[in-house]
Amino acid sequence: MAGNTFGKLFSITTYGESHGKGIGVVIDGCPAGLVMDEKFIQAELNKRKPGQSAITTQRKEADEFIINSGVFEGVSTGAPINIFIANKDAKSKDYDNLKDVFRPSHADYAYEKKYGIRDYKGGGRSSARETAARVAAGAIAKLFLNHYKIEINAFVSQVGQVVLELPLNEIELNHIESNVVRCPDSETAKQMINAIEEAKEQGDTLGGMVTCIVKNCPVGLGEPVFDKLHADLGKAMLSINAVKGFEFGSGFTATIMKGSEHNDEFVVENDIIATSTNFSGGIQGGISNGMPINFNVAFKPVSTIMQQQQTVNKEGEQTNFEAAGRHDPCVVSRAVVIVEAMTALVLADHLLRNKTAKL
Amino acid sequence: MAGNTFGKLFSITTYGESHGKGIGVVIDGCPAGLVMDEKFIQAELNKRKPGQSAITTQRKEADEFIINSGVFEGVSTGAPINIFIANKDAKSKDYDNLKDVFRPSHADYAYEKKYGIRDYKGGGRSSARETAARVAAGAIAKLFLNHYKIEINAFVSQVGQVVLELPLNEIELNHIESNVVRCPDSETAKQMINAIEEAKEQGDTLGGMVTCIVKNCPVGLGEPVFDKLHADLGKAMLSINAVKGFEFGSGFTATIMKGSEHNDEFVVENDIIATSTNFSGGIQGGISNGMPINFNVAFKPVSTIMQQQQTVNKEGEQTNFEAAGRHDPCVVSRAVVIVEAMTALVLADHLLRNKTAKL
Amino acid sequence: MAGNTFGKLFSITTYGESHGKGIGVVIDGCPAGLVMDEKFIQAELNKRKPGQSAITTQRKEADEFIINSGVFEGVSTGAPINIFIANKDAKSKDYDNLKDVFRPSHADYAYEKKYGIRDYKGGGRSSARETAARVAAGAIAKLFLNHYKIEINAFVSQVGQVVLELPLNEIELNHIESNVVRCPDSETAKQMINAIEEAKEQGDTLGGMVTCIVKNCPVGLGEPVFDKLHADLGKAMLSINAVKGFEFGSGFTATIMKGSEHNDEFVVENDIIATSTNFSGGIQGGISNGMPINFNVAFKPVSTIMQQQQTVNKEGEQTNFEAAGRHDPCVVSRAVVIVEAMTALVLADHLLRNKTAKL
Amino acid sequence: MAGNTFGKLFSITTYGESHGKGIGVVIDGCPAGLVMDEKFIQAELNKRKPGQSAITTQRKEADEFIINSGVFEGVSTGAPINIFIANKDAKSKDYDNLKDVFRPSHADYAYEKKYGIRDYKGGGRSSARETAARVAAGAIAKLFLNHYKIEINAFVSQVGQVVLELPLNEIELNHIESNVVRCPDSETAKQMINAIEEAKEQGDTLGGMVTCIVKNCPVGLGEPVFDKLHADLGKAMLSINAVKGFEFGSGFTATIMKGSEHNDEFVVENDIIATSTNFSGGIQGGISNGMPINFNVAFKPVSTIMQQQQTVNKEGEQTNFEAAGRHDPCVVSRAVVIVEAMTALVLADHLLRNKTAKL
Repeated sequence: MAGNTFGKLFSITTYGESHGKGIGVVIDGCPAGLVMDEKFIQAELNKRKPGQSAITTQRKEADEFIINSGVFEGVSTGAPINIFIANKDAKSKDYDNLKDVFRPSHADYAYEKKYGIRDYKGGGRSSARETAARVAAGAIAKLFLNHYKIEINAFVSQVGQVVLELPLNEIELNHIESNVVRCPDSETAKQMINAIEEAKEQGDTLGGMVTCIVKNCPVGLGEPVFDKLHADLGKAMLSINAVKGFEFGSGFTATIMKGSEHNDEFVVENDIIATSTNFSGGIQGGISNGMPINFNVAFKPVSTIMQQQQTVNKEGEQTNFEAAGRHDPCVVSRAVVIVEAMTALVLADHLLRNKTAKL
Repeated sequence: MAGNTFGKLFSITTYGESHGKGIGVVIDGCPAGLVMDEKFIQAELNKRKPGQSAITTQRKEADEFIINSGVFEGVSTGAPINIFIANKDAKSKDYDNLKDVFRPSHADYAYEKKYGIRDYKGGGRSSARETAARVAAGAIAKLFLNHYKIEINAFVSQVGQVVLELPLNEIELNHIESNVVRCPDSETAKQMINAIEEAKEQGDTLGGMVTCIVKNCPVGLGEPVFDKLHADLGKAMLSINAVKGFEFGSGFTATIMKGSEHNDEFVVENDIIATSTNFSGGIQGGISNGMPINFNVAFKPVSTIMQQQQTVNKEGEQTNFEAAGRHDPCVVSRAVVIVEAMTALVLADHLLRNKTAKL
Repeated sequence: MAGNTFGKLFSITTYGESHGKGIGVVIDGCPAGLVMDEKFIQAELNKRKPGQSAITTQRKEADEFIINSGVFEGVSTGAPINIFIANKDAKSKDYDNLKDVFRPSHADYAYEKKYGIRDYKGGGRSSARETAARVAAGAIAKLFLNHYKIEINAFVSQVGQVVLELPLNEIELNHIESNVVRCPDSETAKQMINAIEEAKEQGDTLGGMVTCIVKNCPVGLGEPVFDKLHADLGKAMLSINAVKGFEFGSGFTATIMKGSEHNDEFVVENDIIATSTNFSGGIQGGISNGMPINFNVAFKPVSTIMQQQQTVNKEGEQTNFEAAGRHDPCVVSRAVVIVEAMTALVLADHLLRNKTAKL
Repeated sequence: MAGNTFGKLFSITTYGESHGKGIGVVIDGCPAGLVMDEKFIQAELNKRKPGQSAITTQRKEADEFIINSGVFEGVSTGAPINIFIANKDAKSKDYDNLKDVFRPSHADYAYEKKYGIRDYKGGGRSSARETAARVAAGAIAKLFLNHYKIEINAFVSQVGQVVLELPLNEIELNHIESNVVRCPDSETAKQMINAIEEAKEQGDTLGGMVTCIVKNCPVGLGEPVFDKLHADLGKAMLSINAVKGFEFGSGFTATIMKGSEHNDEFVVENDIIATSTNFSGGIQGGISNGMPINFNVAFKPVSTIMQQQQTVNKEGEQTNFEAAGRHDPCVVSRAVVIVEAMTALVLADHLLRNKTAKL
């Protein structure tokens, strides 16, 4: 109820702060009998961890995890699974200057007013470090979805002004991990990396976009009328730090289309009902229709810049602020696996929920 | 859990189908002591009702409501409030041809597969007629928000290719109701109406955009980390029929901005902490910061067009389909009050949730 | 969240007051494909309705119901089912004297303090008339449980000093409806009826006990650690008006037993694992074990007595109070079907929840 | 949803197994600004820990806890609080013989059938060791309730045949901790201890009763109609291992009382509205009325006895079983603080919920 839980049947509750003892998650509702592939979970965490490349923050966290419960002899038991990731490289001193000042476009001011107290070290609970817990839980959700052959692939489709221009069906999903920015087109990737390095040199930051494609999603996931599949996906994405927008299928482009252009006609292909176009993005009436699900997630530029800014302190006085510490010049490459994790959690939840739809 | 409930403390559960006995809602958690202004509730419903102007469907529903519970001598008692709106002008015969056919880009196919049974009359539960219940509940949420002087105004900012070009701070919110399309600029409104009428003549439909502005929202609404205020607003909007995208503050534009441009510097104005720009859209770290909240909601063109389309029937055979009945050529003018209602419900819920944030 | 919803997957939300327009319920999560047997639903309501015999209140309510949604051509569609039961024989004038006075052992005082406003007519929301909605919903849950051959039978096992002395396995469940007090032993039933009539003549009321037996419950229902099957049954029973206690299996008697007496040894009978005794009451570790589930529910004597009592008025002054109106001298005979309904709702919910326990 | 979460606004999720790495809890919704008294939390855990006296199991666990999140400089921040208690003295070898056998009256069989897999070491998730997490969380709830001067005291009122005969108002609550069995009457306590030691010598176990009294509970806690305060207390108690029954106020005795005896007349005492008797147990219509809340909790004898018993193995064959390991001959003395913890959690939750009852 205080907002730290996501999902109803496949449900996660995260906890932990950027510079506290660590980040954790309790996964409740993971079906019994799931083989835990710990190497896979670690590999997923590695895609998110700081310090993984020259274009990310240089904070060094191995993000090694420990499973404290819910797994017996390598298999889930139906009991809640707790995963804990200790913080190892927190340099709290970098943040002493934040004690009394509200960083522009950060959560500092809103937290202070809401709670009357604020863990100012590294942003405390508002830090994107919390998403490590999501990635660990999302990895388990992916292991579950593997049983249904559902495939989730996200990638960077924009960094600042650099846009990946390929149509969705020409994206080579197996190229995503071929470069540090996680754009499946190597030429565009190079430009993106250049743009990030240039921003970094200027002490500035960039926004960008992550696109996600889900294949082999069965028909029927999503609950009318409020828990539509795309509504839950949208909420999941918007809950990720720095996200400003979400669109699925045709998205905002739909606003300028006519019905006669936008409608996806049903066709029969190899005895399977499909649609000839997919402006619906694989979801109709809030329920998956078996076509690929696709959506875009817009990220703002990182709020921590290495330039002097005006702001206000706790006493309500105007002051100047200049950030210290280690920060990302652009988050989208690390966000790719977070987007996938949240997608996996939504789908796992709706898969379980759909098990009770009919007699 | 089956998706018909929205909100946690100020919570609504809707029920009813397009061509059944009617549409209803139970509002649970409305604080006791709220004076019910029934005229206001009806006025809100009138903004959504069909047949209100030449550019909407000609189905005639007065959408008169009855309060069955939770109100005693005109005041809420803390007990659940039930509102019921009878269906009066359902012409089910118009839909007999839908029994065995899946309309393109409608929910028919997905429902049939999910539930194994489908109320095909007017789309049954998937019909946007369900939103009448949301508007009634949203009206009560607005009455509650009045006690906090929170103001919610939505308007049509785009119809097809016609875009309202005014910056947000130049919008005259009291002009919204001055025309049937609910665009606050009369010249743009005319073009929008023309576009809709033209599409209608062609048996075609248009998409569009609704923009919403919230003023006087107190600081502190929103719950980290999953129930961020904008994440719950996003889910609320995406749960509305025909919505394809959501963005708040700078939205998708943030993807091409630099941090040094995008950051909202804090300033002190008349002893109040504010920001000099508002790319954050009034929400930072998922929590309202006291600045105006603004967001855009993208609507696809209506799926029911008066043109022949290809589709598939229940037997999985290719067939042709042509719609009958009375339909909207563009939904955005009727969606304005729905967007406001869902906004009010999210804010009322988070207002109550925030009452327990600190000792 | 305001307490008017019960169940997580098979979920009901009730609304309505004793002397308002009626009582209603929304059932969300009933699986699609369930044939609605309206005659059965009415028959269940008839077991609870007032005026059914000489030993109940003489308020006359047919308790006829209407299904407003969620059912199409006689079958559940997966959409929320709304049932409404209009109030027909409310005599509000009987309650004008309650406007400013707090009836002893009623909810009047607590409601007034909690909400600052109170619907004093017939107890408003606190009236047991609300349970009509539970019985209607419980009837649908029973229809669902029929698909699993689960049988629920409750009966009156005590009225005041008159106790049914038969051991559980000698109870003839098909005799329950053979008398108005719903005690399966006709001789004991007569004594119970006499006791109730005697109390009524004295303007007094009696307490009593309802016992419930569930047969054919599959193994595996119940969720560790908080949503144990007996914990949810206990909450369900304690939520019924006038209930003061709940025990299952050996219940309070277990406190004086030794482990060597109380343990239920496992045996194999006809290739089925069973226990030789059933002090566990069919539930071990919070999960059904396939043996019959049995529990007792203690009801206090009705608070409304036809005798003068001391009390306090809204101004906090001492005053006398004497009830008017039509009231039950003992509620257990009408409570039998309410106990069954709540049991059915708990089992239906846990049946659905158990569908996701393992891969 | 899988049952490991309790409470809606002051909410806990527990995890961990008897012989895994430890037991943990996430407390979500604890208001910001609460000073964490770690000594108090440890003192509470000490009352539950094994090996504390001659009449408990000799497993040695210091039950030292670590707070991993949600507390900054000794004060709650509004972020989720994680507490972890490592298992130190797990002797898993004691349980190797349980791998293939179902212990009588334990959860073994039900878990095996429900999940298809079972952590058999020390009962895994079904072990009462899980309650350590509840006690830690309950201690924090008590710290919160201290701000409202609410006092919770539980004590042992029965062990086997030995019953504490004092009326509630003569109980000296400050004597509870004066003996190892936690019965406030020293003479009765001695008899209880003797009874436990005698049972232990015989390799047998005893049941018993815990009684709880809450003082200074404000008027208005509890939510009609399903989340009545006593219904949530009942569920809380029934969710504790080995509990078989719950009654509040007059409890089962109410069944033999007349309304004229049972009704609690309202009186004005020192300008405060009270009742002259308290058969209601401080709760009317599901809402606290300001009088002391009291209830009884029935515990069965411990299932693990040191005697040979018949049972069935995983292959469905009849077999003999004799327990090894270290076990409690009677759990009530350790259960006292668990009952208090669950009471505190229910009250903290309803205190927060009540904050939104009226305008």
